Amino acid sequence: MTIRVGIQGASGYTGAELVRLLSVHSEVEIVFVTSERYAGQSMDKIFPHLSLREDLVCRPLEDDSLLSSCQLVFCALPHVTSMKVVPKILAHDLKVIDLSADFRLKDSAVYEAWYKETHVAPEWLGEAVYGLPEIYRDRIRDARLIANPGCYPTSVILALAPLLSGGGVIDPKMIVIDSKSGVSGAGRAAAEGKLFAELAEGFRPYSMGSHRHTPEMEQVIGDLLGETVRIRFAPHLLPQTRGILSTCHVRPVAGEEGGDWRGRFADFYRDEPFVRVMKDGVLPATNHVRGSNYVHVGVVEDRRTGWLTVLSTIDNLVKGAAGQAVQNMNLMFGLDERTGLTQLPLFP
Amino acid sequence: MTIRVGIQGASGYTGAELVRLLSVHSEVEIVFVTSERYAGQSMDKIFPHLSLREDLVCRPLEDDSLLSSCQLVFCALPHVTSMKVVPKILAHDLKVIDLSADFRLKDSAVYEAWYKETHVAPEWLGEAVYGLPEIYRDRIRDARLIANPGCYPTSVILALAPLLSGGGVIDPKMIVIDSKSGVSGAGRAAAEGKLFAELAEGFRPYSMGSHRHTPEMEQVIGDLLGETVRIRFAPHLLPQTRGILSTCHVRPVAGEEGGDWRGRFADFYRDEPFVRVMKDGVLPATNHVRGSNYVHVGVVEDRRTGWLTVLSTIDNLVKGAAGQAVQNMNLMFGLDERTGLTQLPLFP
Amino acid sequence: MTIRVGIQGASGYTGAELVRLLSVHSEVEIVFVTSERYAGQSMDKIFPHLSLREDLVCRPLEDDSLLSSCQLVFCALPHVTSMKVVPKILAHDLKVIDLSADFRLKDSAVYEAWYKETHVAPEWLGEAVYGLPEIYRDRIRDARLIANPGCYPTSVILALAPLLSGGGVIDPKMIVIDSKSGVSGAGRAAAEGKLFAELAEGFRPYSMGSHRHTPEMEQVIGDLLGETVRIRFAPHLLPQTRGILSTCHVRPVAGEEGGDWRGRFADFYRDEPFVRVMKDGVLPATNHVRGSNYVHVGVVEDRRTGWLTVLSTIDNLVKGAAGQAVQNMNLMFGLDERTGLTQLPLFP
Amino acid sequence: MTIRVGIQGASGYTGAELVRLLSVHSEVEIVFVTSERYAGQSMDKIFPHLSLREDLVCRPLEDDSLLSSCQLVFCALPHVTSMKVVPKILAHDLKVIDLSADFRLKDSAVYEAWYKETHVAPEWLGEAVYGLPEIYRDRIRDARLIANPGCYPTSVILALAPLLSGGGVIDPKMIVIDSKSGVSGAGRAAAEGKLFAELAEGFRPYSMGSHRHTPEMEQVIGDLLGETVRIRFAPHLLPQTRGILSTCHVRPVAGEEGGDWRGRFADFYRDEPFVRVMKDGVLPATNHVRGSNYVHVGVVEDRRTGWLTVLSTIDNLVKGAAGQAVQNMNLMFGLDERTGLTQLPLFP
Repeated sequence: MTIRVGIQGASGYTGAELVRLLSVHSEVEIVFVTSERYAGQSMDKIFPHLSLREDLVCRPLEDDSLLSSCQLVFCALPHVTSMKVVPKILAHDLKVIDLSADFRLKDSAVYEAWYKETHVAPEWLGEAVYGLPEIYRDRIRDARLIANPGCYPTSVILALAPLLSGGGVIDPKMIVIDSKSGVSGAGRAAAEGKLFAELAEGFRPYSMGSHRHTPEMEQVIGDLLGETVRIRFAPHLLPQTRGILSTCHVRPVAGEEGGDWRGRFADFYRDEPFVRVMKDGVLPATNHVRGSNYVHVGVVEDRRTGWLTVLSTIDNLVKGAAGQAVQNMNLMFGLDERTGLTQLPLFP
Repeated sequence: MTIRVGIQGASGYTGAELVRLLSVHSEVEIVFVTSERYAGQSMDKIFPHLSLREDLVCRPLEDDSLLSSCQLVFCALPHVTSMKVVPKILAHDLKVIDLSADFRLKDSAVYEAWYKETHVAPEWLGEAVYGLPEIYRDRIRDARLIANPGCYPTSVILALAPLLSGGGVIDPKMIVIDSKSGVSGAGRAAAEGKLFAELAEGFRPYSMGSHRHTPEMEQVIGDLLGETVRIRFAPHLLPQTRGILSTCHVRPVAGEEGGDWRGRFADFYRDEPFVRVMKDGVLPATNHVRGSNYVHVGVVEDRRTGWLTVLSTIDNLVKGAAGQAVQNMNLMFGLDERTGLTQLPLFP
Repeated sequence: MTIRVGIQGASGYTGAELVRLLSVHSEVEIVFVTSERYAGQSMDKIFPHLSLREDLVCRPLEDDSLLSSCQLVFCALPHVTSMKVVPKILAHDLKVIDLSADFRLKDSAVYEAWYKETHVAPEWLGEAVYGLPEIYRDRIRDARLIANPGCYPTSVILALAPLLSGGGVIDPKMIVIDSKSGVSGAGRAAAEGKLFAELAEGFRPYSMGSHRHTPEMEQVIGDLLGETVRIRFAPHLLPQTRGILSTCHVRPVAGEEGGDWRGRFADFYRDEPFVRVMKDGVLPATNHVRGSNYVHVGVVEDRRTGWLTVLSTIDNLVKGAAGQAVQNMNLMFGLDERTGLTQLPLFP
Repeated sequence: MTIRVGIQGASGYTGAELVRLLSVHSEVEIVFVTSERYAGQSMDKIFPHLSLREDLVCRPLEDDSLLSSCQLVFCALPHVTSMKVVPKILAHDLKVIDLSADFRLKDSAVYEAWYKETHVAPEWLGEAVYGLPEIYRDRIRDARLIANPGCYPTSVILALAPLLSGGGVIDPKMIVIDSKSGVSGAGRAAAEGKLFAELAEGFRPYSMGSHRHTPEMEQVIGDLLGETVRIRFAPHLLPQTRGILSTCHVRPVAGEEGGDWRGRFADFYRDEPFVRVMKDGVLPATNHVRGSNYVHVGVVEDRRTGWLTVLSTIDNLVKGAAGQAVQNMNLMFGLDERTGLTQLPLFP
């Protein structure tokens, strides 16, 4: 099988990561790439690490001449841009995996409250499937439009999901998520706050209480619990390039304290190809998943204080973006979910 | 005035930091330095950044010949070693500032439970004063033995103190501290886990629920509240050298929500020379205090979820160790507390 | 085809990199791994990024029970250890790729002068083939014992080779190599000089004039030129984990100034699958080859001063060690040289 | 004595560093600061590490109302801007220390060739004194206008000066300078190439043969030797914030090989307060001078190849910019040269 794909927005870090992964995917041919800023330039010029892909020359965003040659388009565009472009592609009867936030929230009012933008394609929100295979695998197989999850929500939802099944064993009113992310999650556009000289030796919090990934987590966790939840989400910026580690502080409900938490997680993820539950005594670290689609999860209960801490780590550009998109594509086209994603993490 | 001081354990990072600070302190003369591992070697050889202090040659730990020429000894020795050495120095009728953990906990049983070591000098625990000037300034002035606070507790206690006065305005059962530290806090001894190749791009949690700074925080916070508290303390290791940032998740008690938190903090620290409360819209970052004795504190309430987040940052080797020791010395000898500590942070 | 291989010394960075690469090589089965320090432990415990290889349990170095099940053994042992182990493996009629320095130098006296060790297996020096495919491809195909090149020599020889053919176009007496390496090249053993706190923000030179990779470069470059050469080699340690960049300062001989250097390099490497000559205006950077077997080479002439500068970069653990070893294996077993090495560099 | 100073261009890294240093200088009062981009904002808002200087509010560049209250103005403006502003300040009969490149080159034609800009104030080039105290101390004392040296030239000239006196002992045709700099030297303006995600793990060369600091080195070295020299200067960008290390490859002239190089350097710099010649066996490292005005110099001869290597390191923002400017100010006002610059380097 050869899946013919296009990539809208190939000159950002996520777009480049799609090119990196798809270039070694045995069943994929990249038919076109686009870039608003670099139209006319080849990928090896924009990203010297892609020196082998001088054949891929960026087309303008609006160039739709090759759409009909494709079966699937990845949209790695900024939010707002994406919701304008995606419906046009869908009109060509193609499948779309959208890596922006535009189709993740089911309620356009919630989108508008957090993103301060009017949603111009709310008619697609119902059909869009949230592309987290470990939770919504079956729906993904049949989807036309995938809303690829945000990086933070991927790390958080996979950390909490085993605690939410069967009504849940934690107090949904006491969820404190303290997340830390590498700076590549903020993209390649130049900004003072992302300069090496500002970040090196300069760990810092940001967007305390206002981060836009919050409602996305709440939506999925609420869906799993069957009730509305409010999560305290506190993101921080790490002096490193890739990797998210989420420290999830939760409280077991009465009667569940002292449970076999590791066993519960291992059972829940027994058949998952990309989720690894850490053995006792090993805690997740961002460089143990770097460059790969793997998720490492660890769980520690503190009987002294009553808090249970779940730690999860992903590479924000792979499982948190491009890798998860490829995993979704594999599902949509009936391939083994692992195709093109078997590379082991790059350590050290 | 010239205070004549000795430094026990000058070949670790904390010892070197004491030499760095005291070398430019206008009222101090360093009479001797010791090192177990580097006895006979000069400081410039052990630490090339101290190239001006080739005059300081390390003596063996047990050499007490120059004690009588001193008024004060800083002990920057490992715990356990310290509790053996300190009583001997005190016997010479000198003042001591001990930077280890050995004299911080009032109850030797608590020490033994967390440190898994028998305390051999419990008779000094009562007299030792916990050297956090912002909390115990008056007692420090008259102390013979200062237990210099740990780095994490300094960042956490100063973040919470304004919320604990007058009975406290937060729920003492719901304190979650998520701290992140640079690796210099773990000292200079070679270990695989501190290698550059293991840590760069490799943010990670450690000692979840078992970190020895936990009872130290609980003791002081309990003291301020007038009741026993249990704190969930979750430390992490940053891919950077200096700096601690503590994200303190707490819950205002009923009736206190929506308070003027920034005003409360600004009032509390109004006369403090080293604590700066961030203006609205500015959050602390580790590289904004690096190399200095300053503490930056920020506070953000999330009305949506009911959590209040206090963020504090210090340089773990300065306000978290050597700088605080110098501040204590200044108090003990009647100097302006800022003497020798006026250097501004090194940024970028 | 399935090549059955063993790995001696799997608990160092190079050994782990071999496991990472061979685990996704379509034609290889890892039959055994050994480790002196971690015998009895599984690879996922020693290296959590290899969480999928809990099946590989380290055997003791001296355990030769599975040798007869293998066709090839990779030796990723320290030098001196290697020259004792390799002859024993060869006695079992297996092929060996040795990643240590022990079989690289043809003259045991040169080895002994630079390494200050007696060579105990000089009888194998003649048969060993220096495993740099771009230079010695044909000999590699038929070799029983490959001496896998050092990381610095790989970067330097590939930078200079196009200038040495046909008698050479540069002055062999004026070769100044200023190289910079990430710290992973120094291995995983704990040492103060490799600590994060010592290296971050702490670029430094080392082994000026005494680095043991010097004679290795001189041997191959002398071989290509047909005369003895002496090279000024100045290595430096970078505050980063992976990557070598060599800045090679050379002087074109009279009459060759102003040549089409880029064209010369492009011609020389036209058919090489892993060497990429940078286009004009693009210079190599270590993170453009990270995690991959690629070499990026750039060349700049300074007509004003008469110096020609060749810049080359590799990932020291891949093309500088494990990746090159896999490339050699592919050649020895008649596979496409790129098998298992097609992963694109990990950037950012 | 109180020297009343102004700072033009206080919102860049160099300007902030001037504020950091001058704030603790016992003999200085900062009367005003300016910023084009941040006019009206206070320094603590632009740079949170300067939280103590909320009193300093940036004025517009063209505001000259406080000039008459000053004795000296530091200009930390971009080149081209500086040559327009400096003559206006000088017209007020003030002293000026200009940290840009605009007054460093004596020949405006050389300036125009390298900077591709017309010089609009060539009449001041003759009077401007190159502010490198170790070379031009006496002229600096009497200067009205100081051209503060570039960071690279400071590191290179101080590395070579001891070899140039008395006609020189090295071949002036064979000078190869391989320099490596932290990224703060490139300023605070946002640009893709300075992003953390691009630089971390991404050591790289740049401006090979075209760097504008080249003629500045050639001018001073030519001045010391009494002849015209051409230097091969190869700069590289380090994945770190502060620090320059220059590796200077030179060749002793016949008869000078095997000299007591360390002794020669120690003699030459015997009375210099800021230059430290490394003892045998110690090589310079950037983090051994960080945050300080010190220069560390080491020298190694390679008898085997005939090359002599001098290694020097400085903090590019201190001795390479703001610290050297303060040192020049001290000389111009008859103060002890070390005033305000006695802080020891910040390590680790």
